[in-house]
Amino acid sequence: MAAFFSDSHYRAKALGAPYAALWQTLERNASGGKRVRPRMVMAAYEALGGTDFDAAAHVGAAFELLHTALIVHDDVIDRDFVRRGGVNVSGRYRDIATTAGIPLPDAEHRGMSVAIIAGDLALFNAYRLIDRSGVDGILRTRLHDLLDEAMFVSAAGELYDVDFALRSGPAGGADLPTVDDILEMERLKTAVYSFETPLQAGAALAGASAAAIAALGAFGRNIGIAYQIVDDLLGVFGDERDTGKTTLGDLREGKRTVLLAHAAAHPEWAEVADLVGSPELTPDEAARIRAVLEQTGSRRFTEALARDFANRAWEALVDPELPDTAREEFRPVVASVLGRVR
Amino acid sequence: MAAFFSDSHYRAKALGAPYAALWQTLERNASGGKRVRPRMVMAAYEALGGTDFDAAAHVGAAFELLHTALIVHDDVIDRDFVRRGGVNVSGRYRDIATTAGIPLPDAEHRGMSVAIIAGDLALFNAYRLIDRSGVDGILRTRLHDLLDEAMFVSAAGELYDVDFALRSGPAGGADLPTVDDILEMERLKTAVYSFETPLQAGAALAGASAAAIAALGAFGRNIGIAYQIVDDLLGVFGDERDTGKTTLGDLREGKRTVLLAHAAAHPEWAEVADLVGSPELTPDEAARIRAVLEQTGSRRFTEALARDFANRAWEALVDPELPDTAREEFRPVVASVLGRVR
Repeated sequence: MAAFFSDSHYRAKALGAPYAALWQTLERNASGGKRVRPRMVMAAYEALGGTDFDAAAHVGAAFELLHTALIVHDDVIDRDFVRRGGVNVSGRYRDIATTAGIPLPDAEHRGMSVAIIAGDLALFNAYRLIDRSGVDGILRTRLHDLLDEAMFVSAAGELYDVDFALRSGPAGGADLPTVDDILEMERLKTAVYSFETPLQAGAALAGASAAAIAALGAFGRNIGIAYQIVDDLLGVFGDERDTGKTTLGDLREGKRTVLLAHAAAHPEWAEVADLVGSPELTPDEAARIRAVLEQTGSRRFTEALARDFANRAWEALVDPELPDTAREEFRPVVASVLGRVR
Repeated sequence: MAAFFSDSHYRAKALGAPYAALWQTLERNASGGKRVRPRMVMAAYEALGGTDFDAAAHVGAAFELLHTALIVHDDVIDRDFVRRGGVNVSGRYRDIATTAGIPLPDAEHRGMSVAIIAGDLALFNAYRLIDRSGVDGILRTRLHDLLDEAMFVSAAGELYDVDFALRSGPAGGADLPTVDDILEMERLKTAVYSFETPLQAGAALAGASAAAIAALGAFGRNIGIAYQIVDDLLGVFGDERDTGKTTLGDLREGKRTVLLAHAAAHPEWAEVADLVGSPELTPDEAARIRAVLEQTGSRRFTEALARDFANRAWEALVDPELPDTAREEFRPVVASVLGRVR
């Protein structure tokens, strides 16, 4: 990642300081994450006997760059100007514009416009990092296909998330997304590109059998969904000292989650439905929502669902096609997801 | 293009009808253009002796898909919901949302959100069309580098266009972009990816010498700038019966052009400066602006500049490294650009 950004920054300088500055902003936004996708690529690669860690690092960086593009554009779609406590690309360029005296609506649109450009740059270069890995021929095509699948599927998930946002809104009415709708959306939007395909890419790069690659893919799909469900649980019930993020954010945003989809099917939900998605939601109101989520059994249901997907992930690892090293490598991943569930 | 979209549509169906519908909307938006970039690829390829037109068609399609992505995202940045008389991706999904009873601001944001996703899909697949061309090794890397250059440079141009839009606005004050600023922005944003790099790609695919590729690149850069300048002239002074588009559009939008940048440096401009960019601009007001553009000599200046760049383009073609077939192929292109200048 560092090599790619330093090359790009150098190239950008020749086209002007503001363009070089955009690349610096993009690099800042690409750093500081948990690097989940490269970790998955590397873990699968190592567990299946790979030894060329430089090639694996390039493939991991390709998935991370795809992730960078998707979150930068996702923030534009969600009209978010903040990520991980700091301003994101949209926020940075919105602030530059307001400082220059541009009125806020125009400044926000300017920030979002620059973020569209920045996301495009990250997206367009993901393939090239696979080319830089040095692999060629059929394997390179296989890796391209996996990266392609990752992006193709997450775009569908993003589209459905946009649809749900409208259906959950005032005009949504009775047509709320069901628990299954949300699960499918989260699988498409996040699990496939964050877990399933990076694991498959690492395994493919290590020369694993088709059956082993498929088994790791099944593990990734299920652990990815479990991970997402737990994330949504912690977004409402988590301990801010552990998660480091407020438990009001998701509720104020009205984020579409399994937790809320389950609750929405119960009459008690009517009492608090209007509070969800209100940007001024108070801690007391949030507490009322949590109480309803307990009454309706939505919290228990969601926790059980997370455990269920984590167990399915573990079952996939038991596949005889996978070496013990794979089970040793990924047992802690399953454990950490289960550990985050109450 | 047709093969790519039919494959993608088939894949998308498996992820749900709404996703397949998005691919259909994207395909509609990708068709009906002048296909300038594929024409440039094919013309250069043929002029330099290429014979594998299937490979050249894939390379041409890669540049056209890049173009599709850039205009879809450019429309989001410009908040345009219409293109070529019909609704664009943003407009189509805005209308679906309003029909569903979503209030207009949210419906517009929904349209723009889906357009971001659609543009990402086109952008991400451009590289793959080069892979599908069947070329391999160093040549494929060279073609990837040219496509990369095209996108890398046009992103810089888009960034500067966004900056100019703000500087030209109420808060812009004295800091208006100069003629040179505009020329550089138009070169970066359009000329490089529409003419320079597609021509170089066609030549490279045909196995042309580095010197021949460089000469065609110089031709493309200059004819591309000339083409853009003429386009801006016709946007204000064109005959709607020939151009098929209103001569009020660019003025209502306040489009940054050489024509207006030149005029802005003259005191007479103050009389009409506030009219430019007003969405309700009347034909009479437009006539007043045109009168000032004549008084300031801005029209004459801009026409001379277009001829100057077209002549530079022709000089590049005279390079002995280029075969006569290249001059025969591109003389009409130069003539048509000059022919559009009064």
